[in-house]
Amino acid sequence: MFKIAVDAMGGDNAPAEIVAGVELARDAMPNMAFQLYGDQAQIEAVLVNNDRIEIMHAAEMIEMAEEPVRAIRKKKQSSLVLAAQAVKSGEADALFSAGNTGALLAAGIFIVGRMKGIDRPALMTTLPAFDGPHQAFTMMDVGANAENKATHLYQYGILGSFYAREILEFDNPRVGLLNNGSEADKGDALHKEAYGLLAHGGEQGYLNFIGNVESRDLLQGAADVVVADGFSGNATLKAIEGTAKTMLRVLKSTIMDAGLREKIGGALLKPGLKRVAARLDYSEYGGAVVIGTNQPVVKTHGSASAQEVANTFTQIHTMLDVDLTGKIQRFVTDHADELAARPETEEK
Amino acid sequence: MFKIAVDAMGGDNAPAEIVAGVELARDAMPNMAFQLYGDQAQIEAVLVNNDRIEIMHAAEMIEMAEEPVRAIRKKKQSSLVLAAQAVKSGEADALFSAGNTGALLAAGIFIVGRMKGIDRPALMTTLPAFDGPHQAFTMMDVGANAENKATHLYQYGILGSFYAREILEFDNPRVGLLNNGSEADKGDALHKEAYGLLAHGGEQGYLNFIGNVESRDLLQGAADVVVADGFSGNATLKAIEGTAKTMLRVLKSTIMDAGLREKIGGALLKPGLKRVAARLDYSEYGGAVVIGTNQPVVKTHGSASAQEVANTFTQIHTMLDVDLTGKIQRFVTDHADELAARPETEEK
Repeated sequence: MFKIAVDAMGGDNAPAEIVAGVELARDAMPNMAFQLYGDQAQIEAVLVNNDRIEIMHAAEMIEMAEEPVRAIRKKKQSSLVLAAQAVKSGEADALFSAGNTGALLAAGIFIVGRMKGIDRPALMTTLPAFDGPHQAFTMMDVGANAENKATHLYQYGILGSFYAREILEFDNPRVGLLNNGSEADKGDALHKEAYGLLAHGGEQGYLNFIGNVESRDLLQGAADVVVADGFSGNATLKAIEGTAKTMLRVLKSTIMDAGLREKIGGALLKPGLKRVAARLDYSEYGGAVVIGTNQPVVKTHGSASAQEVANTFTQIHTMLDVDLTGKIQRFVTDHADELAARPETEEK
Repeated sequence: MFKIAVDAMGGDNAPAEIVAGVELARDAMPNMAFQLYGDQAQIEAVLVNNDRIEIMHAAEMIEMAEEPVRAIRKKKQSSLVLAAQAVKSGEADALFSAGNTGALLAAGIFIVGRMKGIDRPALMTTLPAFDGPHQAFTMMDVGANAENKATHLYQYGILGSFYAREILEFDNPRVGLLNNGSEADKGDALHKEAYGLLAHGGEQGYLNFIGNVESRDLLQGAADVVVADGFSGNATLKAIEGTAKTMLRVLKSTIMDAGLREKIGGALLKPGLKRVAARLDYSEYGGAVVIGTNQPVVKTHGSASAQEVANTFTQIHTMLDVDLTGKIQRFVTDHADELAARPETEEK
């Protein structure tokens, strides 16, 4: 039985949508049990059937706008901190939240704990690929770190390859380094060094490194695993999000503000536009993963519906079922020296 | 009379579209003269009327794929290098090319020369704003530098403000720092330091600093001048480009692959879609500028039409007419100490 520690208070529609999502997942997956951390009265008010669901009362909660590290240090009785501690102590196997992303990152790294041999866990997200061999690609770090070293990026290539192979079921996933040009000598010192490490990993057969990729080619499926430093990965993800959102909004207002012709055209085209919007809505591809922690730590977006919450539990189920963290840990332990920050890197 | 040195051989449709664009601009602006650098026979074959147009034969040309710095060092007789030297020597007032962007950057920085007091000229581009007080915003550095120091970013805030005020005619343009969050303490060491310098500039009244902006909000007009380091600015610009291109492509194929309903809807909506695509096509807002050089250096995209080439000359005309580089140079000279790289910054 897989046991999931759920922050039932995180998210715009918590605890109602979270609890409803947990019940959907419980009904769909017979070998999953849930610990709902949060306000007991509020959870009881929305819980229909407590089969395989245990309420763990938490007196506090972390708000969306709180400073993450301070919040997890100060609010020891918050739903998130208590849920993370349950994973740390082995009472639960994975951590879920739809709340403050920074706080979940901090709880994942500092409470659940980073995996031995992984220096800086990353925030990883899965996005749609509109061309290439697969329907999606995975990218990290999209914002766990403001600064990275080359060895971190090498480790992300390994982590992302495991995820793409084991969870997305891609055969020999293509790893690309997000850089400011496609040629091998592109980028600043960090990216040149990371290129060398990833190329070395490719030669050793640890991953399938295909070289540099540019942000303009990502949605065309340029790589299955996109390795980025946390600063430019964050900027890239947010630029993709913002552009997609703006374009859909502009198209909509173009239709509404225009003449009858466009209004009829828009009405006829509506199902097509909806399909495009749905493919761009990357919550379809599962929640964001804090990769490199000792156990699965997964975040879904704040406004997730019960169905989206349930989908995220399916993703967590797969991660536990294939023993993703165990497989990564064994690889990292076996290749500890190579993956470690080398002295000349540490000095920087 | 403004004299423009034109690289007539750069671009996908050179020299034909370039020469045609020059003739359109010549007919529209009586106080502009042009020196066309390139293959004399090829230019003569397409030139209709040589009024205020002088052909300057160049035996070589720089290809799109050539390594920029090596190309401008090696190909001393190339159309781009000769045109840049004409600006350097004062025979011409501004440099134009539709060719290899990196080579134009290198020619701008190393031949035309960087402005005294500006450490690292930037590549600056103007993009559409779909909300906020203006129709466009300008962003730099979008890729001239792989690495920047905080003082460079401060200088970009000054340079961009001059451009937005003098060329785009924005009143008190809002300067935002592209960062991984909107709070003042966000980012890595570089961006935290740049924030401090820009805030200082704001207090002194040198620019109107509004704080950090995130890439997801740029197309919504979050700032009029977006200051970015060259690496993440490049990643952000290419992510915006790639997402817009992919979405338009997916919409198109959704329409084509779908049933009769969508096809009729698509046909009715076509003019609306075209308007959206046109607004996203940022060549509408002028060419990319190498900002921080001694004279205007402007690039239009490789597949520019004659009309787009002519529009870029209108932009150059405005830059010369308001004496943009002169105004910037006077400000930078008057505030040299403050804008200079400080010792503690240089040590990094």
